[in-house]
Amino acid sequence: MLTNMRPVSIEWGMCDPAGIVFYPRYFEIFDGCLNALFKRATGLTKFEMLAKYAVTGYPSVDTRCKFVRPCKFGDEVTVESRIAAFRRSSFDVEHRLVQADGSLAVEGFDTRVWVGRDAEGALKSRALPDDLVAAFA
Amino acid sequence: MLTNMRPVSIEWGMCDPAGIVFYPRYFEIFDGCLNALFKRATGLTKFEMLAKYAVTGYPSVDTRCKFVRPCKFGDEVTVESRIAAFRRSSFDVEHRLVQADGSLAVEGFDTRVWVGRDAEGALKSRALPDDLVAAFA
Amino acid sequence: MLTNMRPVSIEWGMCDPAGIVFYPRYFEIFDGCLNALFKRATGLTKFEMLAKYAVTGYPSVDTRCKFVRPCKFGDEVTVESRIAAFRRSSFDVEHRLVQADGSLAVEGFDTRVWVGRDAEGALKSRALPDDLVAAFA
Amino acid sequence: MLTNMRPVSIEWGMCDPAGIVFYPRYFEIFDGCLNALFKRATGLTKFEMLAKYAVTGYPSVDTRCKFVRPCKFGDEVTVESRIAAFRRSSFDVEHRLVQADGSLAVEGFDTRVWVGRDAEGALKSRALPDDLVAAFA
Repeated sequence: MLTNMRPVSIEWGMCDPAGIVFYPRYFEIFDGCLNALFKRATGLTKFEMLAKYAVTGYPSVDTRCKFVRPCKFGDEVTVESRIAAFRRSSFDVEHRLVQADGSLAVEGFDTRVWVGRDAEGALKSRALPDDLVAAFA
Repeated sequence: MLTNMRPVSIEWGMCDPAGIVFYPRYFEIFDGCLNALFKRATGLTKFEMLAKYAVTGYPSVDTRCKFVRPCKFGDEVTVESRIAAFRRSSFDVEHRLVQADGSLAVEGFDTRVWVGRDAEGALKSRALPDDLVAAFA
Repeated sequence: MLTNMRPVSIEWGMCDPAGIVFYPRYFEIFDGCLNALFKRATGLTKFEMLAKYAVTGYPSVDTRCKFVRPCKFGDEVTVESRIAAFRRSSFDVEHRLVQADGSLAVEGFDTRVWVGRDAEGALKSRALPDDLVAAFA
Repeated sequence: MLTNMRPVSIEWGMCDPAGIVFYPRYFEIFDGCLNALFKRATGLTKFEMLAKYAVTGYPSVDTRCKFVRPCKFGDEVTVESRIAAFRRSSFDVEHRLVQADGSLAVEGFDTRVWVGRDAEGALKSRALPDDLVAAFA
């Protein structure tokens, strides 16, 4: 399965009064990394991809992070992202954020659903397109 | 002109490694205060108001903050917001964020444009509705 | 066990291009709710409490959210927060974010560690103070 | 005067229900760009630089953005940052955020103060070190 590596700089504004990353920022980082993984697989930005498949997005339904080591301002880290499983209309994502010395800092897990809008504008799950799934092989 | 007072709790996650509010958070606070001022004037949430007038939003075209005193985690502050001027399709907003002892901490200035989408989907300015402007008198 | 209810307004800036809350914002909301729960129990802000017990904070080591229903701009929700378990130097938190009609929108789970700094400045777990734990009974 | 160019990807989570960047995010972007400019000049991360000069930071006292064209999810932009003026203990920063086609999207202006803590822990301005200023020539 395709894996994407993304370098991330830990910025001052991501860190809290304890001098370490304020943990909701990791979810923002991982969301960007998931979009980058899709771009790596499809060659499209999320904006272009949503237009191509006429869907609204792929919201999270269940997400979790395990914080192994804190990161602090100035750290240059790398996030390794891959799809762990595709189902009919949902998929699981795994992220590993590692420090420059190779040590694991954060693990992320995320289940996403592929959704469009019905006639009333409500979000409804849709089957994942075969060619999209194939692009991750 | 109508003024809205909004209490705001300074949260841990708004503060940086120096122990004070990371300044972009003040712009988020003031954006919420502007929406609260409109709700005070119209009785509608921003969501309802945009639907009523069939517009897309009121994006900022020029905004500024002067930081007089830093705020830190645990401070309970109040933001005083008012419209300083209405023009045909734009308006100026002023915010004063004051500490519990009444001292001024931050002043905010913001110019907004009332916009809708044209046939091609591009954002275009629209005249401010008279009844909306009247609601602030 | 003490429960804290906190009203939260869903702001424009919390929402994404799909018109629903960008999910990392729920972790920010829940972090504020945990601090509010501690304040409810102790009468102290986080800032005052950390000073009183001479510790650095209570960082998350494992956190998860299940997203049952999306929230959108203008929703007025309530978060119900409680400590599910206290251990020697860590504790589990549960949050339930409910819509105005009482329906569950998001469930949050969080494991925190009570930490201070050792002589070299590294973060180390510390035993939770008995009087602090007692304040939640 | 030294200029730093920084590529920035506009992420889904930076954008609001109108599909464009939520404007407080530009201040976060520009804060990261200022730190990158200092790193370019000194070879040090902000963390290392604050330690070297034994100061607390360089908080903003007055900042402004002019929004010329909206940016949307998927845009790949570049930020050009430079110091416009150094004074005894403060300095002015200018940022230009340009789209891939070279068009100007956002201009940022920021006045910062070089601060340390006095014996009581209060933030006080300090003279900018000569060698630091010289590094930007």
